[in-house]
Amino acid sequence: MNQDKVILTGDRPTGPLHLGHYIGSLANRVILQDTYKQFILLADMQALTDNYDNPLKVRANILEVALDYLAVGIDPKKSTICIQSMIPQIAELAIIYLNLVTISRLKRNPTVKTEIKQKGYGENVPAGFLIYPVHQAADITVVKGTLVPAGEDQLPILEQANEIVRSFNRIYNCSVLPEIEAMMSPVSRLPGLDGKAKMSKSLGNALFLSDPEDLVVKKVMSMYTDPDHIHATDPGKIKGNVVFTYLDAFDSDKNLVSQMKEHYQRGGLGDVIVKKRLIEVLNNLLEPIRARRSEYAKDPSTVMKILFEGTEKTCKIAEDTMKEVRAAMYLDYHT
Amino acid sequence: MNQDKVILTGDRPTGPLHLGHYIGSLANRVILQDTYKQFILLADMQALTDNYDNPLKVRANILEVALDYLAVGIDPKKSTICIQSMIPQIAELAIIYLNLVTISRLKRNPTVKTEIKQKGYGENVPAGFLIYPVHQAADITVVKGTLVPAGEDQLPILEQANEIVRSFNRIYNCSVLPEIEAMMSPVSRLPGLDGKAKMSKSLGNALFLSDPEDLVVKKVMSMYTDPDHIHATDPGKIKGNVVFTYLDAFDSDKNLVSQMKEHYQRGGLGDVIVKKRLIEVLNNLLEPIRARRSEYAKDPSTVMKILFEGTEKTCKIAEDTMKEVRAAMYLDYHT
Repeated sequence: MNQDKVILTGDRPTGPLHLGHYIGSLANRVILQDTYKQFILLADMQALTDNYDNPLKVRANILEVALDYLAVGIDPKKSTICIQSMIPQIAELAIIYLNLVTISRLKRNPTVKTEIKQKGYGENVPAGFLIYPVHQAADITVVKGTLVPAGEDQLPILEQANEIVRSFNRIYNCSVLPEIEAMMSPVSRLPGLDGKAKMSKSLGNALFLSDPEDLVVKKVMSMYTDPDHIHATDPGKIKGNVVFTYLDAFDSDKNLVSQMKEHYQRGGLGDVIVKKRLIEVLNNLLEPIRARRSEYAKDPSTVMKILFEGTEKTCKIAEDTMKEVRAAMYLDYHT
Repeated sequence: MNQDKVILTGDRPTGPLHLGHYIGSLANRVILQDTYKQFILLADMQALTDNYDNPLKVRANILEVALDYLAVGIDPKKSTICIQSMIPQIAELAIIYLNLVTISRLKRNPTVKTEIKQKGYGENVPAGFLIYPVHQAADITVVKGTLVPAGEDQLPILEQANEIVRSFNRIYNCSVLPEIEAMMSPVSRLPGLDGKAKMSKSLGNALFLSDPEDLVVKKVMSMYTDPDHIHATDPGKIKGNVVFTYLDAFDSDKNLVSQMKEHYQRGGLGDVIVKKRLIEVLNNLLEPIRARRSEYAKDPSTVMKILFEGTEKTCKIAEDTMKEVRAAMYLDYHT
C-alpha cells in the first residue's frame, strides 16, 4: 500500500454509470484501490449545481451509482465511498477558499467557460455553478488528496485547486494543504454508440453497466459502423467504426480483433458477425457486474450502510484537516 | 416575550465597537432582548472576506467585540451570542443557496456594487466578497430569523435574502424558510468626530466604547464644530456642528440642549462649554460600560465560555433547520 499518496475521485450522481465510465475510470479504480488510499465521492452537492430543480434525480442516483461501484468491484474495505452533502467540512472549506479566488479567475477557467456556453447560461450562470472548481478543491484537499485521476478537461480544475492550495499555504504561512497531482487517464474517451465523441446519458448513446443482456444485443446491433459498408462483401473502414473501437477497448483477444479488422477492410466480413463478437465480449464483461449488482440491489439498506460508514470515516479525516486549517487561520478559539 | 419573531443581528469582528454602533444598534439590542428571541452573530467568516490576509485582526476582535456586547448590557441569558465560523451549518446552507442565485444578480446588488468600487476591486473581486449577501442569507435563515435590524444600506442584502427564501420554498415545494422583515433603525447614522458622514475605525474618527475618560476628553475637545465660530461671542451654527449632533443623540436633558443651541446661535456660548457638557454626558454613559468591560476583561476565558455556550445553542437550532432543508431537498439519506 502506497500510504504517501491519497486518491480522491468520484462522480456526480446524475445517472447510472456506463461503459465510458468503466473504461475511463471505474476499471482503474478497482486496480488503484490495492495500491493507494482511495476516496470515492458521490458528489451530490455538485450534481445539484445544475440540477438544483431536480433533487429527486440526484437522490435516486446516489443508490444507482453506488450499486455500479460495488458491481464493478470497488471494495468498501479498500476504497472509502462517501456522500458529499453529508460532509459539512467540504462546505466550510469551500467558503474559506472563496476568499482566495477572484470572480474573474473563475470566469477564465476554460472547462467552466465551455460548460457555461454549452448550458447556455450566459450572464445568468448560477453562482454555485461558476464556483464549482472551488468546491472541488475543497473535496480533494479536505481529505488531503494528492492524486486525482483526470482527463484533459479536468486539468484546468486541478490547476485552479493547486492555485488555492498555494495561496492558502502562503497567506496562512503553513504547509497544511498538499499540492495535487493529476493522474492522466491511460485510456482515451469512449465514443457513443452513435459514433459521437462522447458517450453520455443525456445524448442517448450510452450502454449502461446495468443494461440487461438483451438490451446490450439491441444496442450493439444498432451501433454505428461504416456507412459505406453496405454488403458483407464490400471492403469496410475501421477508422470511425465504433464497433472496432469498442473491440479495441474491451476484447482481450487482440489477435482475433486484428484478424477481424484485416478481413473487414479486405471485404467479406459482415457487420453482424463483428457485432456478435462485441456482444459476446461485452456480455462476458458485464455478466459478473450484473450479478453482483442484482445481489446488492436486493438489499439497498446494506448499500446505504456502506455509504454511511465511508462517509463517517471521511468526516473524521475531514475534521482533522479542518482543525489544522482553523489553527492556521487563528480560528481555533478553543485553544 | 414575543416568540413569533426571531432577531438575527451581529457584527464583523474587525475592530472595537464605537458610539456609532452604540446608538445605531447596541442600545436597541439591549431593549429588544427583553421582547424577542435574539441571536447576535460574531461574523468572523464575513470579516475574513476582505481581511483574509489578516486573520489575527479578526481573531483578536472576537474578544474585543464580545466585551463591548457584555459591557453595554447585552445579557447572555437573554441574547444568544455566537461565533459564525463555529457553525458549519451556515457554510452548508450558503453552498446550497449559491445554486439559487446568479452571478449577474449578485453583481447588481447596489450595496455590494458600492463596496466593490470603494475597495477598488474592479474585476478582481474575491468570490467570497461578491457572494457575502448569500452567506448573510444563510446566517439569518439558519436560525429562522424573521426580523433583522437594518440601516438603509442593508436593505438590498435583505431583499436578496428574501429572493433566496422564496426560491428555495418554491423550488423545493416547502415552507421551511420564513421570510425576513427589516426593522429599520430608529436613529440616523452618527457622524464621525471630524464631521464626516460615518464614524468608522478605518477613518480614524471614532470614539470607542472602550476609550478611557481622558481620551474621551481629548477626542471631544478636538471635535468638529462650526469653523466660522471663532470667538465665543460670535453667533454659531448648529447645522453640521457635530458636538450638537452628539448632544441630540446622547443628552437626555433635551431642555438644556435646546437652551444651549439657542445661546450658541445667538452668540456668547463658547465651544469649550458645549464640549464640556458633551464630555460629561458621554462619560456618564460610558462609565458603567467601562466598569462592566474591565470586570469581564479580567477573565477572558469566562467571556469565551459565554460565546461557546451561545454557539452550541445556535448549532443545535441550525442543525434542526438543516434537517428540514435536507428533507425538502431529498438529501435526508438516513430516512
